[in-house]
Amino acid sequence: MMRGVVVTQVQRAAAADIDILRQCGSATVHEAQARLGLLAPYMRPIWPGAQIAGSAITVLVPPGDNWMIHVAIEQCQAGDVLLVAPTSECTDGYFGDLLATSAMARGVRGLVIDAGVRDVAVLKEMGFPVWSKVISAAGTVKETLGSVNVPVVCAGQWVNPGDVVVADDDGIAVVPVAQAGVVAQAARQRTDKENATRDVLATGTLGLDHYGMRERLAAKGLRYIESLDQL
Amino acid sequence: MMRGVVVTQVQRAAAADIDILRQCGSATVHEAQARLGLLAPYMRPIWPGAQIAGSAITVLVPPGDNWMIHVAIEQCQAGDVLLVAPTSECTDGYFGDLLATSAMARGVRGLVIDAGVRDVAVLKEMGFPVWSKVISAAGTVKETLGSVNVPVVCAGQWVNPGDVVVADDDGIAVVPVAQAGVVAQAARQRTDKENATRDVLATGTLGLDHYGMRERLAAKGLRYIESLDQL
Amino acid sequence: MMRGVVVTQVQRAAAADIDILRQCGSATVHEAQARLGLLAPYMRPIWPGAQIAGSAITVLVPPGDNWMIHVAIEQCQAGDVLLVAPTSECTDGYFGDLLATSAMARGVRGLVIDAGVRDVAVLKEMGFPVWSKVISAAGTVKETLGSVNVPVVCAGQWVNPGDVVVADDDGIAVVPVAQAGVVAQAARQRTDKENATRDVLATGTLGLDHYGMRERLAAKGLRYIESLDQL
Amino acid sequence: MMRGVVVTQVQRAAAADIDILRQCGSATVHEAQARLGLLAPYMRPIWPGAQIAGSAITVLVPPGDNWMIHVAIEQCQAGDVLLVAPTSECTDGYFGDLLATSAMARGVRGLVIDAGVRDVAVLKEMGFPVWSKVISAAGTVKETLGSVNVPVVCAGQWVNPGDVVVADDDGIAVVPVAQAGVVAQAARQRTDKENATRDVLATGTLGLDHYGMRERLAAKGLRYIESLDQL
Amino acid sequence: MMRGVVVTQVQRAAAADIDILRQCGSATVHEAQARLGLLAPYMRPIWPGAQIAGSAITVLVPPGDNWMIHVAIEQCQAGDVLLVAPTSECTDGYFGDLLATSAMARGVRGLVIDAGVRDVAVLKEMGFPVWSKVISAAGTVKETLGSVNVPVVCAGQWVNPGDVVVADDDGIAVVPVAQAGVVAQAARQRTDKENATRDVLATGTLGLDHYGMRERLAAKGLRYIESLDQL
Amino acid sequence: MMRGVVVTQVQRAAAADIDILRQCGSATVHEAQARLGLLAPYMRPIWPGAQIAGSAITVLVPPGDNWMIHVAIEQCQAGDVLLVAPTSECTDGYFGDLLATSAMARGVRGLVIDAGVRDVAVLKEMGFPVWSKVISAAGTVKETLGSVNVPVVCAGQWVNPGDVVVADDDGIAVVPVAQAGVVAQAARQRTDKENATRDVLATGTLGLDHYGMRERLAAKGLRYIESLDQL
Repeated sequence: MMRGVVVTQVQRAAAADIDILRQCGSATVHEAQARLGLLAPYMRPIWPGAQIAGSAITVLVPPGDNWMIHVAIEQCQAGDVLLVAPTSECTDGYFGDLLATSAMARGVRGLVIDAGVRDVAVLKEMGFPVWSKVISAAGTVKETLGSVNVPVVCAGQWVNPGDVVVADDDGIAVVPVAQAGVVAQAARQRTDKENATRDVLATGTLGLDHYGMRERLAAKGLRYIESLDQL
Repeated sequence: MMRGVVVTQVQRAAAADIDILRQCGSATVHEAQARLGLLAPYMRPIWPGAQIAGSAITVLVPPGDNWMIHVAIEQCQAGDVLLVAPTSECTDGYFGDLLATSAMARGVRGLVIDAGVRDVAVLKEMGFPVWSKVISAAGTVKETLGSVNVPVVCAGQWVNPGDVVVADDDGIAVVPVAQAGVVAQAARQRTDKENATRDVLATGTLGLDHYGMRERLAAKGLRYIESLDQL
Repeated sequence: MMRGVVVTQVQRAAAADIDILRQCGSATVHEAQARLGLLAPYMRPIWPGAQIAGSAITVLVPPGDNWMIHVAIEQCQAGDVLLVAPTSECTDGYFGDLLATSAMARGVRGLVIDAGVRDVAVLKEMGFPVWSKVISAAGTVKETLGSVNVPVVCAGQWVNPGDVVVADDDGIAVVPVAQAGVVAQAARQRTDKENATRDVLATGTLGLDHYGMRERLAAKGLRYIESLDQL
Repeated sequence: MMRGVVVTQVQRAAAADIDILRQCGSATVHEAQARLGLLAPYMRPIWPGAQIAGSAITVLVPPGDNWMIHVAIEQCQAGDVLLVAPTSECTDGYFGDLLATSAMARGVRGLVIDAGVRDVAVLKEMGFPVWSKVISAAGTVKETLGSVNVPVVCAGQWVNPGDVVVADDDGIAVVPVAQAGVVAQAARQRTDKENATRDVLATGTLGLDHYGMRERLAAKGLRYIESLDQL
Repeated sequence: MMRGVVVTQVQRAAAADIDILRQCGSATVHEAQARLGLLAPYMRPIWPGAQIAGSAITVLVPPGDNWMIHVAIEQCQAGDVLLVAPTSECTDGYFGDLLATSAMARGVRGLVIDAGVRDVAVLKEMGFPVWSKVISAAGTVKETLGSVNVPVVCAGQWVNPGDVVVADDDGIAVVPVAQAGVVAQAARQRTDKENATRDVLATGTLGLDHYGMRERLAAKGLRYIESLDQL
Repeated sequence: MMRGVVVTQVQRAAAADIDILRQCGSATVHEAQARLGLLAPYMRPIWPGAQIAGSAITVLVPPGDNWMIHVAIEQCQAGDVLLVAPTSECTDGYFGDLLATSAMARGVRGLVIDAGVRDVAVLKEMGFPVWSKVISAAGTVKETLGSVNVPVVCAGQWVNPGDVVVADDDGIAVVPVAQAGVVAQAARQRTDKENATRDVLATGTLGLDHYGMRERLAAKGLRYIESLDQL
């Protein structure tokens, strides 16, 4: 139903919201939306330290076939993030330094792919960030259609074109484009609060006290004993 | 039987023994106790190069619930290592930079967790070492009791509170507190011997000769041939 | 049928071909031989950045037993690569810094092992490259024979002694010794062509246009629409 | 955003369409919608031979917490299928014979759960079909809210409440409720065609001839040789 | 420290308690001890329908070496269960029909092995139950010592010799021998209560009402809405 | 190098040897060739109880593309076994009841596939045995060439066309065609010996005594103690 289609119009989030989401990071952003919206933790950065956010250009690809990524590049604008999901599980290296060259020429901020990537040493040199399931030298063919900018499931998460992808060393969170503003505000507040808390905890004040947990723990029945022999 | 309990007294190993074990490293320590005591190799450091040893403060946690880690921090002394085991398999990110701030404020040397960790870029900046099964931005709740300082199975290894945890880039070995002295001596001797052997092998002397293996190999029936056609 | 045998004569590829293959890297080399010859992507370097090629000295080892690696070292010449395959799945740490010392003394360029390796911090310091399935401190015994320089299956790939092993951050490709020259030429041509293409793509020219894909995509039925509502 | 919500109105597909989809089975149904809509193949039936279809009552559950399944049962009508997705990966046994008793009392046709199930011997005796990721005796708690009848990702597939779930020994396909009629017709046609083809192939007619593949294979360059020596 | 040892005296639980635990099954037994004591769910029966309980004769085995199982058979009494744990991960087939013949001759009730088993068609014919991590035809050697009747970690669970192993289609629970009586009583009460509940639920009474959950759900903030548009 | 080729001449083993190998089964056959020649244990039968042997018709397939299986059917003779290996990891369902109808029409004894299979309920009804990595309803395309009757690596094992494939509930062993006679004799002798041993062990004679293991165990240092306190 959704093969062989390229959707050319994508609603993107406001740049200011995207920037806040990037600064807050994937962990805080997912907390700010009720601990939902994370991709599976098997998705890992190919080099550490990158921290990006951008509107998703989604790509649905057949197993072992990267043709649609070439098609998708044309749909990218500066600031976008390519997000690639195979129609069935595949570990081949769909994306390498040539595609990255094209992507960077268009201002793409990075790639999230629920499959393999290759030329990782060059990608690191180029400073092009990638989060992938696997690193694999295995090449692909260009024979079968998929789609671009249709909703996809990527690493266990539903992603619509234009949704904000927030990726860093902790993983990847996705924010529906319609909620980017609200979530950005909630994430910023959460970050501010965590910064304040960090200062308190650094002095040695226990979380048990700072968060006022002792009473509720006691109510649940927590017991302090000196030795298991006391049980 | 062991839920909802915090044991406050922990027998720790001597600091001198802990230090020797740290220097010898996980591989040598596990060899020194009959090739036993290793956690499963899926446990990996979140950044390379850390090498620690310390007395275990054990934490038993429900899936997706990190409440007990807050409780455990209070039980930590300088030089301890937090060791966290879930009651059933879970990949959520139980521990982040706020808990690390508290842990460092108490002098905790690092974390070993058979589950997920997050804020890894910050933890690396802080210099707080963690060995985990997974890196995940997924947050947890605080609803259900576990226990602190009870015996746990962590990544396939039985650990008692106070046991010495030795962790480095190769993995994690655990030494029962009662045997810390004996194992430390055995490990040091092993290290000394390996250092001497390394010098010999570096000259090009073959292990076959240095270890005197040729005769036993021949007795087992090892044959040298020029080509498989000779079979 | 092939246990307990050490084959002492190995046909190696020409040094010049090996060097070209090393420069082209695993991804290009496997493309140059019809996208075949790759080891499984679970094989990962223990430190990033190494890029080697060399003739394989193959080692068949029982689970948890590294005796044959000691035997294999003697068969290595300068420029060779040790390639170790267990007879059944095993994650133990078969190889550490002492064996690496011996290997480097003989000019071995690196290790590919479909099992575990240890002492990885030291190996990195020594600059000895390893690609392995796992990192594990778990030691091994020396009780049961395997073989050296027999054909083996390593990480899903058939390898004969003397075949050229090409390993880098993308993974590991194997080239049959008889085809090293042909593949090296094909890989070099491919590399030259990719370099030219990279320059074109860097200017912003789309792959769709550079590779002339638009017509074939249309023939397959690709449709461009503004919104999914148009379906 | 979507925690703590129970949606009580669900649009269901026509019973006649559901019945056709059930008869056609998961493989044919997914073919009939462009080879899309399948759950991941790690989802397996706990006993062989069941073949069901029904409207999805979706349940979003926290790790290790089955409270929402109790809530969901009330939302089920005769003919529905419970479909349960955890907010993060979990293998606990969320569902057993007591919940199955309730589900059967309401006419639920089966359970699809991207987590664990238990009491499987009793479930088999009761004739209650379940497809799960794992079988596990591990129990769960009732502490944290999820949601009922919100869109979920289950085993890599996006599912809306009311979508038709088609499950058998091959796996599980999901059909959007709005397309149930169209897909049912396409699946029936496909089944009819396959039945006719089966009769032809059973006589020994080759698929190469029946499907007319020889010409296209030749055009792609397929060569028939007597031996590899001819290459 | 614990290699090369056979402990000949094992404290076993009372036969009556073992029998109650067997009838209650692994899920109920683990609930009766605070949802603890389960082996990992990757442990599966090689044929469905067996339901056993017995005192553990523990066996620690090296990877790929089944010598200690031969030693352990002699330590078994009628009603015991063999429980085998490798010192490092291994999938070889340690146990087949010959060992099963010996085990049945001594009245052993079954095998739990965190590794591979073979001859499974014959074992099924013989009616010998096995729970294993894998089925594998791969044979093992007899070269290296392990131990018999020492504490082991098996599939993530600490097991002492004599502990009661309860195994069925849901998995495997272990009860410390000292608590067999208490847990058996708790499990029986739980079973009785579940039987009564089952009768109630079969009439269509909802768990929400029977367990009185509605108020607590409301207190947590659960909202019922007709459509997501109401959010 | 080996894509796009169909080799039409295959040397097959003698029917009598194939029949002996079938009767002996995969475990005994692999023991008879030095515990080598087994496929990885993740390969499982889709229904229990089948026991086959036959000459391999090998099929190399791209990920998600089953075109070559159609080509391979024509190369099959009565008594052959189809053995399918993908060029990179794939879980799609390459083979279903239509292909099985063709295969049975030509007298093919079964399928071994290092990927997915579907229509498993029908295949079971038809009595067509399959060993696969996964069961998946996911369909494939027919776009890219592979090869037929070239050497392949299947589930970690090197297989040449014509090699004897021995498959049963324990797994799959492969015997090189040139050694079928020798291995068949060795396997038969092994089976005869095991039958005799089984009769002895059934009387309660311990393996320790029957195999004469006690002396060698003592020489290795095995100690019998009454309690661990004696250490």
